[in-house]
Amino acid sequence: MSLLTVGSVAFDKIETPFGKTDKIIGGAASYIALAASYFTKKNNLVGIVGNDFPQEMIQVFQDHDIDTKGLEIDANGKTFFWHGRYHNDMNSRDTLETQLNVLDGYEPKIPEEYQDCQFLMLGNMVPEVQMATLEKFTNRPKFVMLDTMNLWMDIAMDALKAVIAKVDCITINDSEARQLTGEYSLRKAAKTILGMGPKTLIIKKGEHGALLFQGDEIFFCPALPLEEVFDPTGAGDTFAGGFIGHLAQTNDTSFENLKRAVIYGSAMASFCVEKFGTVRIQNLSSEEIKSRVQGFVSLASFAL
Amino acid sequence: MSLLTVGSVAFDKIETPFGKTDKIIGGAASYIALAASYFTKKNNLVGIVGNDFPQEMIQVFQDHDIDTKGLEIDANGKTFFWHGRYHNDMNSRDTLETQLNVLDGYEPKIPEEYQDCQFLMLGNMVPEVQMATLEKFTNRPKFVMLDTMNLWMDIAMDALKAVIAKVDCITINDSEARQLTGEYSLRKAAKTILGMGPKTLIIKKGEHGALLFQGDEIFFCPALPLEEVFDPTGAGDTFAGGFIGHLAQTNDTSFENLKRAVIYGSAMASFCVEKFGTVRIQNLSSEEIKSRVQGFVSLASFAL
Repeated sequence: MSLLTVGSVAFDKIETPFGKTDKIIGGAASYIALAASYFTKKNNLVGIVGNDFPQEMIQVFQDHDIDTKGLEIDANGKTFFWHGRYHNDMNSRDTLETQLNVLDGYEPKIPEEYQDCQFLMLGNMVPEVQMATLEKFTNRPKFVMLDTMNLWMDIAMDALKAVIAKVDCITINDSEARQLTGEYSLRKAAKTILGMGPKTLIIKKGEHGALLFQGDEIFFCPALPLEEVFDPTGAGDTFAGGFIGHLAQTNDTSFENLKRAVIYGSAMASFCVEKFGTVRIQNLSSEEIKSRVQGFVSLASFAL
Repeated sequence: MSLLTVGSVAFDKIETPFGKTDKIIGGAASYIALAASYFTKKNNLVGIVGNDFPQEMIQVFQDHDIDTKGLEIDANGKTFFWHGRYHNDMNSRDTLETQLNVLDGYEPKIPEEYQDCQFLMLGNMVPEVQMATLEKFTNRPKFVMLDTMNLWMDIAMDALKAVIAKVDCITINDSEARQLTGEYSLRKAAKTILGMGPKTLIIKKGEHGALLFQGDEIFFCPALPLEEVFDPTGAGDTFAGGFIGHLAQTNDTSFENLKRAVIYGSAMASFCVEKFGTVRIQNLSSEEIKSRVQGFVSLASFAL
């Protein structure tokens, strides 16, 4: 089945305790589409960049069989830019600068041939834009997944709750789940979020793994214990890309298959953090992915 | 095989966001021996209490088939006392008061009939006392496990490293693993700790589960996501008790069985936090334990 990812394509400037970058490719949709490309070949991208965005990167997307018909290039604007610095624990970061640029006022346009996509990933964006995007579909996609962030809980909670009510699955991190619900217990937070509309919830806990909730069922996927986390930027988006890429490839949204999708997403995220930006997930072999997934099997399996 | 637990038996006074207690039964050895009692009936306890310790609690130990021949009663002293208050996140706490009392200068005496114990659990104590205890065995037990805490890293690091070098398995939490090694990455910290002597290491991450390390092998056991954590006191000791209780019962220290032991330890810890002190783990049925362990199976299992 075909997957459509709608979200930001950006320049990032990243500082970590291990080094810093100049402007490199970033943005939720970049990570999601690249990660998903290892699972599905029907992979479409909707977003916007400015006149400063390198043609070589668009070529990288295309080399990964990502259809870029929906990637607008605004000849009069500059690409969204984020500059951040990670703290020593690599779990928290400060935003040093954000330039919205072409994202300011952007409303995604869905090419006619994407109307029949079955899997839709709404990357982290203004909730009203996520809602407007969803409303552009004549036939609602079979499976709509949404990512968001704490900023929208601070400044646009009502709009966020409105779009959450319309999707099948949401993915947020543990502190966001607590902020969204006012519950410290993630189990209680999950119950509250599932009551808001989505059938499925993923709570990402970074180096502590991820929890998948559906009805009364819970699945926990550990994060692979890594010797080094080099750059956490995009790990959550890469997780989402591996997750929905696997679902789109298999066209199976059973709980058993959602569990597998969480494993694939976690495996992809474990690659992402090994290098700056999208570098690592631009260059993966299927053998590397298989071997990493086997790492999760041996990490988590036991027999009573 | 018989298990011997050496450690503190105490009074605790506990304050959490959910309530507070008067003096209740606590101490590492109390939690360890009670948890282990659900797995092995050859369960011996060495420790010391004062003249204020209730006979009814000694009866509780005995009702759980815990041999209390090694539990000294100092008629001239008072039982070790700890008073602590948990913060709202339940992950951190302040010690408000500690009275060493009979623990001050205590050196464990090992009854002759415990000399042949095969499994020895050294609960958190002064490292020199742990070492002196181990040296009291003519024949070293087959499997020696040690728990410790950050305090000894602050004030007795050399003595701690000396006893760590002598044991088969150590269990510490994530921040202690980082403090002991100076490594932030738990994978690197584990490598360093395994280089100090023990063949096996368990890093407890509280609500984020536990990691088992041996050689190049790693196993991750999640914590059960609970609606409420009522009182975390003793959860780590209860984990250790379930873990080594299972090993003693099966007399099998293969990695596959260590994995099972981690699951049983985690299941026991998940009960411990549901009520204040040892209340919950004094009253468990084997059906409850089986059902809780099955919770871990469904939480962690997936098929590719």
